[in-house]
Amino acid sequence: MEWIVRVNTKTGKILKEKASQEEMRWGGRLLISKFLLREVPPTCDPLGRYNKLIVAPGLLGGSSVTTTGKFSVGGKSPLTRGVKESDVGGEAGRKIAALGIKALVLEELPDAPTTTVLKVALDRIELIEMPELKGRLVSETIRILRERFDKQAGIVCIGPAGEMKMGGSGVAVSGPQDIQVRYAARGGLGAVMGSKGVKAIVVDDTGAPPKPAFDEALLREAGKALVQGIMADPKTENRHKYGTPAVLTLCNEIGILPTRNFSAGQFEKAGEICGDKVAEMIAERGGEGRSGTPCVRGCVISCSNVFSDAAGKKIVASIQYENIALLGSNCGIGNLDDIAELDDLCNQVGVDAIETGAAIGVAMEAGVIAFGDAEGAKDLVRQIGRGTWLGRILGNGVVVTGKVLGVRRVPAIKGQAIAAYDPRALKGNGVTYVTSPMGADHTAGNALETAKTVNPLGIENQVEVSRKLQIRAAILDTMGLCLFTRPPFTKNPDLFLPLLKGRYGWDLAYADVQKMGLDVLETEREFNRRSGAGEEFNDMPEFMREEPLPPMNSVYDVPMEEMQRIWEVKIPENVF
Amino acid sequence: MEWIVRVNTKTGKILKEKASQEEMRWGGRLLISKFLLREVPPTCDPLGRYNKLIVAPGLLGGSSVTTTGKFSVGGKSPLTRGVKESDVGGEAGRKIAALGIKALVLEELPDAPTTTVLKVALDRIELIEMPELKGRLVSETIRILRERFDKQAGIVCIGPAGEMKMGGSGVAVSGPQDIQVRYAARGGLGAVMGSKGVKAIVVDDTGAPPKPAFDEALLREAGKALVQGIMADPKTENRHKYGTPAVLTLCNEIGILPTRNFSAGQFEKAGEICGDKVAEMIAERGGEGRSGTPCVRGCVISCSNVFSDAAGKKIVASIQYENIALLGSNCGIGNLDDIAELDDLCNQVGVDAIETGAAIGVAMEAGVIAFGDAEGAKDLVRQIGRGTWLGRILGNGVVVTGKVLGVRRVPAIKGQAIAAYDPRALKGNGVTYVTSPMGADHTAGNALETAKTVNPLGIENQVEVSRKLQIRAAILDTMGLCLFTRPPFTKNPDLFLPLLKGRYGWDLAYADVQKMGLDVLETEREFNRRSGAGEEFNDMPEFMREEPLPPMNSVYDVPMEEMQRIWEVKIPENVF
Repeated sequence: MEWIVRVNTKTGKILKEKASQEEMRWGGRLLISKFLLREVPPTCDPLGRYNKLIVAPGLLGGSSVTTTGKFSVGGKSPLTRGVKESDVGGEAGRKIAALGIKALVLEELPDAPTTTVLKVALDRIELIEMPELKGRLVSETIRILRERFDKQAGIVCIGPAGEMKMGGSGVAVSGPQDIQVRYAARGGLGAVMGSKGVKAIVVDDTGAPPKPAFDEALLREAGKALVQGIMADPKTENRHKYGTPAVLTLCNEIGILPTRNFSAGQFEKAGEICGDKVAEMIAERGGEGRSGTPCVRGCVISCSNVFSDAAGKKIVASIQYENIALLGSNCGIGNLDDIAELDDLCNQVGVDAIETGAAIGVAMEAGVIAFGDAEGAKDLVRQIGRGTWLGRILGNGVVVTGKVLGVRRVPAIKGQAIAAYDPRALKGNGVTYVTSPMGADHTAGNALETAKTVNPLGIENQVEVSRKLQIRAAILDTMGLCLFTRPPFTKNPDLFLPLLKGRYGWDLAYADVQKMGLDVLETEREFNRRSGAGEEFNDMPEFMREEPLPPMNSVYDVPMEEMQRIWEVKIPENVF
Repeated sequence: MEWIVRVNTKTGKILKEKASQEEMRWGGRLLISKFLLREVPPTCDPLGRYNKLIVAPGLLGGSSVTTTGKFSVGGKSPLTRGVKESDVGGEAGRKIAALGIKALVLEELPDAPTTTVLKVALDRIELIEMPELKGRLVSETIRILRERFDKQAGIVCIGPAGEMKMGGSGVAVSGPQDIQVRYAARGGLGAVMGSKGVKAIVVDDTGAPPKPAFDEALLREAGKALVQGIMADPKTENRHKYGTPAVLTLCNEIGILPTRNFSAGQFEKAGEICGDKVAEMIAERGGEGRSGTPCVRGCVISCSNVFSDAAGKKIVASIQYENIALLGSNCGIGNLDDIAELDDLCNQVGVDAIETGAAIGVAMEAGVIAFGDAEGAKDLVRQIGRGTWLGRILGNGVVVTGKVLGVRRVPAIKGQAIAAYDPRALKGNGVTYVTSPMGADHTAGNALETAKTVNPLGIENQVEVSRKLQIRAAILDTMGLCLFTRPPFTKNPDLFLPLLKGRYGWDLAYADVQKMGLDVLETEREFNRRSGAGEEFNDMPEFMREEPLPPMNSVYDVPMEEMQRIWEVKIPENVF
């Protein structure tokens, strides 16, 4: 039996209802899109009483299948004013699923400002006032919660930025042994959680009975095939050794690495901040540093890391490509220690490093501090946490920052910062940024992998590429699988079938799985259409259509009509 | 012959073209809507190169007809992201029309920040660099321009807020003898002008030949009938004596006077800030103070004033109802001297007093300063002019202020502050705020006049009322006539015919005039539909639908579907 748990943050009332037959078919991103369209008025105030913060494991969430400890956080985005789903690793997802919770929904608004903790356990779900957590950094919050609650509990929380309802704030999740902090970073979901007065969700699955699969043997066998397929792929070892920073060198080579507020696609210090350098420094320094650590228990890829300082003491875990690009090259900062510290500061105050790095880049262009001023940038992130006027501007993301500081070159689409792949030289990502219901989010359909087969500077086929990638991402986000599990599905998309049959007993064909991905996109698109977040109103920023990006010197020239063709392109029978 | 003057602010090139036959039929607000839909991509960046700032006298602009010295300023609004037309008095309109200029269009963007003055004269139109004007307050700007240019020239300029491209900035126009400053205040058009690098437009009509009317005698006769009709109306004397502040007492009585960030509709100090009090203080103090002064030459209503301090020295000219309500009661400030000083500060830094008063009210709710803290409020407006971080937040208007300060009760629709008539107790205005292409702008269709005939607390007939008022306003804004000239047209709508025949020789029926008003609204609505500024995405703020407004204790409960019916209601043959 699985449950939908609804928490009314106004009355404190908590409702635990059996998931309906229809709801049982939903998970992760699909569930979030369905709940939003069903229950949240699309034009509502994202920080008002009608928005909901939804936490949902994927369909395979909490099973023995690798990476499915990931889970989805969603709601109407304060940045894009459209639907937002952000998936994340850490410990909580597995435990939420272990408790049989299909969705945890924070509803309504408290009448007066409050700082509460939602404790979720087998016997009891309760909202507890914990004013001592007010304004606390993320690591302090986790530390204080550990004193009161189970040491093994999964923690989902926000930093001061989320409490201040800043549009750039994310939702943090504690990693194994509290070494890493993972983030459902994008779209301002931390502010939605903050608006509900909920500082943290503590998930304690003590005593939860094993979750029976329909056919455990089949599930395990399919899970094993998945692992074998992942391990057999050459990219996996690379990811394990170098993590996501591995792509930095490629991005720099093809000229899409955001540099100095997206004014160039190559950074002269790329060699100082690339994946090799990350791994090399971690290996040299020893101490607490680690490459190849998992973000969720049981992940065979383990692409995360612990980045330590010269004395071997952890600065941040984990440092990722996006953080390095936005907080590093995009700010003209070419030193990994500085970037790691900036990244940690973002994690502590509770903001998305992409949104914040973009906002700092714009502030640098405005002359608030100079490009390359790492100490100045750290001060800015600390100011976000303290809520100074300037900090509040930056914490509200790149669009507010550009508006308030009077900067025209604002790298954002639909109110949200563009991820670390400049669309002028990787046009498939441009199509994703503009047309995806998620907006300028690389995880919604990252065309980097096609850069060798489809000319990244050309218009041709980018719409087809993006369509395929977007459907893929939607399927994996619905399953609760990491995007990096894709290789075996590419070889054999039917691998989804024993996974779902083993878990639920469903007899599906691959076409049914693909339909789920389409259903996600259509449901999200319908929500956005009703909310005003459609692509027709949210084209690429003008400077990207006009200012050639060195060194490729290309502009973004995919016409809106060409992009809108995405809804009519013929979908391949198999998008993997 | 009439001209369309286009100024390319990038190249400095100026093009003076004969108005086409079709363009000859357009004026004021109608012209702006047509130009925007024809030439400005609806989804463009309002502060980017594709937006245009359009200055256009009305169809009767610059004729002998009373009040037609008014003119329209327009463009895509940085606040609403839709079409914006703001009309304004002062000296410039008459002179622009006298030079035969039907529209003055600022296009493109300068390559580097610049401070230029557009000098418009009979023999020559030129862009002149005047770096000494950078950052100057409006009165300083006018003073410096007077040293260089003709003492009688009409001046259109922006303050530092417009230069900093703040969303709350307006466009200032010098009044007769530079005593008053008039404002095309709403919608952030000052920022659009600022984005073009144009600090001021200086209009010198020296040597302009008299503008021949088709039938001068007919025009004069009709103009005389208009004046007689205006003078015969009992409201005119009241307006002349007390100005727009005359309505404050009524607004307070029916409970729609914005008080302490729209948390009440009555203010305990209303008696201290009402129209009687304004007139009384002006009369008592003597000196430079005046009631009943015109905002444009030859206006027989003359509803403006010069408000002076106890020593008889001018504080501000003119103080209006909206300013008193938003900067006064809405901020809990009940002293006219303070309000006048705040109003002058807004005029000097170059921001809309409505937007700014609403932003300060939100800042007060956030606890930045206390309600009623007049000195604190003055400091905030000064900070806008200096461009401090907090000043930049406030200068960008109430929505940015609410977002950055984390306030949920934000009195705005479509990104723009609500004017000084709380829609919860005057629901016809709510319909106008939501459905008008202008957004929360009372001049687009103010239902106050219907408060005695249509229950302001009821839903019934509000849509019909708003529809009628919106068409009326669109007609008058197209003619270049002040809204206060309405009474004679109510008695005899055919009075438009000799005015237009006398001016242009057109043989029209009243139905053709009404069609012009409809054409305005349809053209604007089409622009907004394409830009994403339609009402379907921009409902009343949630707090106004939920929080009863004392003392009437009503909420705004006109359903969106009811409001959207406005596009289908049967339009009376005569909306006057």
